[in-house]
Amino acid sequence: MRAQSVALCRPLLPEDTVVQPMLDVSPPKWHLAHTTWFWETFLLREYLPGYQVFHPDYAFLFNSYYNSLGSRVNRADRGTLSRPPLADVYAYRQAVDAAMQQLLIQQADTLPPAFWEVLELGLQHEQQHQELLATDIKYILSTSPLAPAYSDAKLAPIAASSAAKATWLPVAGGVHRIGFEGEGFCFDNEQAPHDTYVADFELQNRLVTNAEYLEFMAAGGYQDFRYWLGEGWDLVQQQGWQAPLYWLERDGQWLRFTHHGLQPVNPAAPVTHVSFYEADAYAQWRGCRLPTEQEWEIAARQFGPDPAAGTFLESNLFDPQPLPPDAAPDKCHQLLGDAWEWTYSAYHPYPGYQKAAGALGEYNGKFMVNQLVLRGGSCATPESHIRLTYRNFFHADKRWQFTGIRLAR
Amino acid sequence: MRAQSVALCRPLLPEDTVVQPMLDVSPPKWHLAHTTWFWETFLLREYLPGYQVFHPDYAFLFNSYYNSLGSRVNRADRGTLSRPPLADVYAYRQAVDAAMQQLLIQQADTLPPAFWEVLELGLQHEQQHQELLATDIKYILSTSPLAPAYSDAKLAPIAASSAAKATWLPVAGGVHRIGFEGEGFCFDNEQAPHDTYVADFELQNRLVTNAEYLEFMAAGGYQDFRYWLGEGWDLVQQQGWQAPLYWLERDGQWLRFTHHGLQPVNPAAPVTHVSFYEADAYAQWRGCRLPTEQEWEIAARQFGPDPAAGTFLESNLFDPQPLPPDAAPDKCHQLLGDAWEWTYSAYHPYPGYQKAAGALGEYNGKFMVNQLVLRGGSCATPESHIRLTYRNFFHADKRWQFTGIRLAR
Amino acid sequence: MRAQSVALCRPLLPEDTVVQPMLDVSPPKWHLAHTTWFWETFLLREYLPGYQVFHPDYAFLFNSYYNSLGSRVNRADRGTLSRPPLADVYAYRQAVDAAMQQLLIQQADTLPPAFWEVLELGLQHEQQHQELLATDIKYILSTSPLAPAYSDAKLAPIAASSAAKATWLPVAGGVHRIGFEGEGFCFDNEQAPHDTYVADFELQNRLVTNAEYLEFMAAGGYQDFRYWLGEGWDLVQQQGWQAPLYWLERDGQWLRFTHHGLQPVNPAAPVTHVSFYEADAYAQWRGCRLPTEQEWEIAARQFGPDPAAGTFLESNLFDPQPLPPDAAPDKCHQLLGDAWEWTYSAYHPYPGYQKAAGALGEYNGKFMVNQLVLRGGSCATPESHIRLTYRNFFHADKRWQFTGIRLAR
Amino acid sequence: MRAQSVALCRPLLPEDTVVQPMLDVSPPKWHLAHTTWFWETFLLREYLPGYQVFHPDYAFLFNSYYNSLGSRVNRADRGTLSRPPLADVYAYRQAVDAAMQQLLIQQADTLPPAFWEVLELGLQHEQQHQELLATDIKYILSTSPLAPAYSDAKLAPIAASSAAKATWLPVAGGVHRIGFEGEGFCFDNEQAPHDTYVADFELQNRLVTNAEYLEFMAAGGYQDFRYWLGEGWDLVQQQGWQAPLYWLERDGQWLRFTHHGLQPVNPAAPVTHVSFYEADAYAQWRGCRLPTEQEWEIAARQFGPDPAAGTFLESNLFDPQPLPPDAAPDKCHQLLGDAWEWTYSAYHPYPGYQKAAGALGEYNGKFMVNQLVLRGGSCATPESHIRLTYRNFFHADKRWQFTGIRLAR
Repeated sequence: MRAQSVALCRPLLPEDTVVQPMLDVSPPKWHLAHTTWFWETFLLREYLPGYQVFHPDYAFLFNSYYNSLGSRVNRADRGTLSRPPLADVYAYRQAVDAAMQQLLIQQADTLPPAFWEVLELGLQHEQQHQELLATDIKYILSTSPLAPAYSDAKLAPIAASSAAKATWLPVAGGVHRIGFEGEGFCFDNEQAPHDTYVADFELQNRLVTNAEYLEFMAAGGYQDFRYWLGEGWDLVQQQGWQAPLYWLERDGQWLRFTHHGLQPVNPAAPVTHVSFYEADAYAQWRGCRLPTEQEWEIAARQFGPDPAAGTFLESNLFDPQPLPPDAAPDKCHQLLGDAWEWTYSAYHPYPGYQKAAGALGEYNGKFMVNQLVLRGGSCATPESHIRLTYRNFFHADKRWQFTGIRLAR
Repeated sequence: MRAQSVALCRPLLPEDTVVQPMLDVSPPKWHLAHTTWFWETFLLREYLPGYQVFHPDYAFLFNSYYNSLGSRVNRADRGTLSRPPLADVYAYRQAVDAAMQQLLIQQADTLPPAFWEVLELGLQHEQQHQELLATDIKYILSTSPLAPAYSDAKLAPIAASSAAKATWLPVAGGVHRIGFEGEGFCFDNEQAPHDTYVADFELQNRLVTNAEYLEFMAAGGYQDFRYWLGEGWDLVQQQGWQAPLYWLERDGQWLRFTHHGLQPVNPAAPVTHVSFYEADAYAQWRGCRLPTEQEWEIAARQFGPDPAAGTFLESNLFDPQPLPPDAAPDKCHQLLGDAWEWTYSAYHPYPGYQKAAGALGEYNGKFMVNQLVLRGGSCATPESHIRLTYRNFFHADKRWQFTGIRLAR
Repeated sequence: MRAQSVALCRPLLPEDTVVQPMLDVSPPKWHLAHTTWFWETFLLREYLPGYQVFHPDYAFLFNSYYNSLGSRVNRADRGTLSRPPLADVYAYRQAVDAAMQQLLIQQADTLPPAFWEVLELGLQHEQQHQELLATDIKYILSTSPLAPAYSDAKLAPIAASSAAKATWLPVAGGVHRIGFEGEGFCFDNEQAPHDTYVADFELQNRLVTNAEYLEFMAAGGYQDFRYWLGEGWDLVQQQGWQAPLYWLERDGQWLRFTHHGLQPVNPAAPVTHVSFYEADAYAQWRGCRLPTEQEWEIAARQFGPDPAAGTFLESNLFDPQPLPPDAAPDKCHQLLGDAWEWTYSAYHPYPGYQKAAGALGEYNGKFMVNQLVLRGGSCATPESHIRLTYRNFFHADKRWQFTGIRLAR
Repeated sequence: MRAQSVALCRPLLPEDTVVQPMLDVSPPKWHLAHTTWFWETFLLREYLPGYQVFHPDYAFLFNSYYNSLGSRVNRADRGTLSRPPLADVYAYRQAVDAAMQQLLIQQADTLPPAFWEVLELGLQHEQQHQELLATDIKYILSTSPLAPAYSDAKLAPIAASSAAKATWLPVAGGVHRIGFEGEGFCFDNEQAPHDTYVADFELQNRLVTNAEYLEFMAAGGYQDFRYWLGEGWDLVQQQGWQAPLYWLERDGQWLRFTHHGLQPVNPAAPVTHVSFYEADAYAQWRGCRLPTEQEWEIAARQFGPDPAAGTFLESNLFDPQPLPPDAAPDKCHQLLGDAWEWTYSAYHPYPGYQKAAGALGEYNGKFMVNQLVLRGGSCATPESHIRLTYRNFFHADKRWQFTGIRLAR
């Protein structure tokens, strides 16, 4: 798992690992160091006798947001720090990995359950930052007029195909159970499992495509306030939004900046890099709506997923993929992977939610206001990281993640 | 109803009706004119043949946020406009009231149902601005170091009494019905009525008092990040919050700015002028939580309310009042009136929500993101305006309304 | 002198005296109180035995910028304070005037020279605020789309005349003496009188007219960066400047907001309400330049002025007036009154400058950086207030004073 | 000359060349490319037939502020661009240098005078960016808590010596000639040479030392508004300034961040990294003042300089050096090199100033407002770049250049 983070940064130049072109993006160098600090802080310092921290200043430099663990570099200043250089960060990673190995070999038999729980959390945390690495690298490379490709993998030419026609999957209302139950890892915010009531509804069986979204654009969707939430409309005006993030019109054709450089928009592929405001406006324009997270999970349990079908980080495609025209019309597709799906649910605690004690109590709980839940993972999510009960969360205006749209009614 | 708006402004000087000391506050002169513009725009122009607007520029000046009705003064600039003067605004009110009277007398028999619906909405809208007048006037007067009283009504001295002891009211989980049903007016956001599932819970039978909140303050509540949501903690640090809005420590005693000038904090009275962040932090510190709006409404239907007991705008007290010590311990008190109660529910559409057609569709729907629901009305709410299904909404950081806390667990 | 301040506010409504539509503008109520506080603080408290301040909070409310005299209302918040009301401020003025009268009658023979110096300064200070009242009132009224007139004095219709043709007045270079010498009052910043060297130069004998400035506009002056200082060009872009402040194009005709409401631009009148950036860009476009303050004063001493010819506050015209076509071509006109003339001189201390001791040392000295000197007074300056050595100063971007242009080469 | 820019960047890691921790600082990578773009744009494209630009996007990326040459990256965004990488920029430099060599070899005999003038300007421009490289690199490294040294040159230990005692050099008033005359290069802003009148004055014969500045600090200079210009005092309050930039108190001792890492403050060395506000406040506190640029140049011509004695970029010391105790008391020392000296003169055009035609007219002229003149160069200035008539300019609040203080009276 640790090697995957390094592998993601291998195509980068040292220069690429330093910059922070907007507040939400962290420099790749910072991601590599912060995840390492996590292991050092929560495991090595706690469990490896006599462990000396790699550098006394790294806790200040690489703590993200844990007030329990003291002061830290202002988030907005992460991109101003050229030191320590990338080579030192790699050395930090190696030293911490070696110490972890030593700890695991020497003490595997005597480590308490709490250790193994945090170890699991460290792996999950590393995976979350792998997704952020993929999306932050994209943003970093996009700011250059040179439009450099992250990957020179040859892309298959876009066939003039269309995606499978969307169908509506009906779900019967009533009391349903959601939230994580059973074996394996979950985040605290997926619990407690609980009953919830929903009325009858229908969910669309695939993500909204670029072709469908282009219809919204062609119909003047970005120019008509009636489809928009008020704060969204203000943003459209201030930012001059005319299309999803990374879209660029050149000679009458829409291009998108991707991990493979500038590419034509594929009509059959799911639209991505849209804010909640755009997702909601699109749904309003269609006369539909976004699902709640409860509806999403209930429908997903009933009609899906076929996990193998999703596009995940491991594919190295870094873009959601079209649903094949022969996909089964009575199944729910693209639930896991491809694009995070905005729900019209606030990221609030579930009934019975308990946050962890100590510093790790700051992991999820303190963000439970002013954000919306997204479900299902994306093409930048490691496949083993995602599950149907997973609750991701972002503010309504964010567009730099692989976020997409699924309609309900 | 129209006279009440004017009555609220009678104690003011013309100078008081012009200023806008913060973005959320509108000048009283603006409130008086905007409510009048509402009648003119949605009723007179639509239904009174040959009606000429009072002044061609007033639509630009007094439209609040209706994009359907064209451009308007930037909200932040409302407090820079000395003209039209207060006298002209009163003349505007009289002219519009006279025209309404003419319309009602001459055409009462032929006006369509749509007219009567908007008329009702106009009355409700006027009441909403009466509450805003009460709270905005308080804020305006508070900015002066002279701490002027709005009202010179003699206040009864604060007895050294304590409030009734709080009890916990148990509610059995299951599917309950909420939302507005039946006769009479409701806003579109209270519909559709629908079933919802809640687990067993308990709700406290009264609001949190100043004495209880002072315990939180004394325990270092404003200094300990562990009780706070992240964005709330940032605000505490940036703004230097140490107490609710309007509180002032002088010679070791806590005072509060009120409509009656600076007054000692009454330990038995409900705490008010707290943000959602403070309400949530207080609940966390107590080991409790805030209710959801579903829980609030279900419990309110079961255990209350005794509407006569609440404190409303008509009392001219402009402050929530202590619960008498002999209040029934098995009833839910202070549900309507006194202080708006923060819930841990996002202001989102109910299942089956339909927004109105045309400009009035902008009334409620476009605000349905990033805000939290408050329930029950306050001491500044007209008594006839409030009901158990009423959904008010504010951003989590707002403190200038009469907002309070009720605990759940 | 004191009565003149009140007379200027007489046409205002109480509402007009409260607002602060931009940072540079102070509410008229504040001006009336601040000038009164000046007398109270520097004279009554010092010299009238047993004097009790009118109100203990007024020093906090009405101190402008004297650090020596303690904390004060943030300048940006002056327009948020509705209290004390205008009536109280007038009562404050009367009480202080009465106390001053008492002091002058009872103690005139025993008051020390220092008293009479500060008394003179108090009068001059009052006059400075009379000019600010005139310009701030104009700005306040201008923000309303109603474009209300301050004065309903009938204006003579604009004759289709042109101004006197401009001539160039040649000044021989060499060492000249500038700065205030002799009897009477001057501000500390006009001293010490000193020698200065200038090369041969020419100064234009009148102010630049609207007709001339319209040529600059028509030639694309606001669209061509080559004429502009860098920081000025940035401002033009950000603010979208296309004309002087208060200009408005309607149906192909340029109008100006004035103390008499919206009026057509008079081609023969001097252009006013231009920033230093605009004045300099205009001069660059003409292939000329702005004079230095040394050049201005030397030429003014040699070729002018005819003080009776200027337009001052007492005229109640509130606008610079055209130079009659028969004005003598070999004299320098419009030097005093009409419009402040931007010079290309920084507001720095003269050689030998000494700032006063104590709080009054903050009167002029601490502003001596980042501002430019303006000379000659304007149509809003009391006639007895201005003289050829007078140094006014504003930042390069300011436009709300009656500022104009005179060319040099 | 071109090699020197590269040599300055040799100790840097690629990561160091990308970041922009504050607006005034440009990434070293940008400096290396921008200076190269200057040669390409003003010489190769003009004079080398058939020259193809190295990359079509580089003009957009590396134009600094020339409106004549089209749109460009927002200055604030220079630190967000990781591409092109440092290696590409070095390749750009080599390609342009090779093309320049080709041009010079092939066409040396036929190139017009205008070519040689711009060639000279290109060299001077390169030197200016060498100074900026030195100061920007310092700032970049300083932001890291790791306090990395740019250079590991062993520093001589600070001897417990004191600097030479300061003396006052008297200059007789009268008309003096200043500005550049004669052979060799100068910038347009050093002309026209002209007469100027000054009164008698005295100038101190060396820079103010750290020991002297520490007396100001110990006397509460940063806490007493009376010494400060108003805008400076506001800044002291807002920024919490307590000492020059880069100073850090640790265990009661003052340290400074330098190119050699954190070092103790050397009492005998000139104080540096002070703003104009601090320089002026220090002078006020001493009962002295800052010289005007006229006074500075007149005294410098009369009493100095001994150019060999100054500390320049070539020394690789990157810090102003103490004046030896045996320095001649009747000479003016440290005039060239060591630290730029704030004058109390605005950066305005000299009499007879003519800006160049075309894009190079934007080099100096458009900055001639709101900045102050500094004289004499610093320890980061190439020795061949500086002369007594040289006019540097910065805003009053800037501290990241090697700026120091010389007193006048």
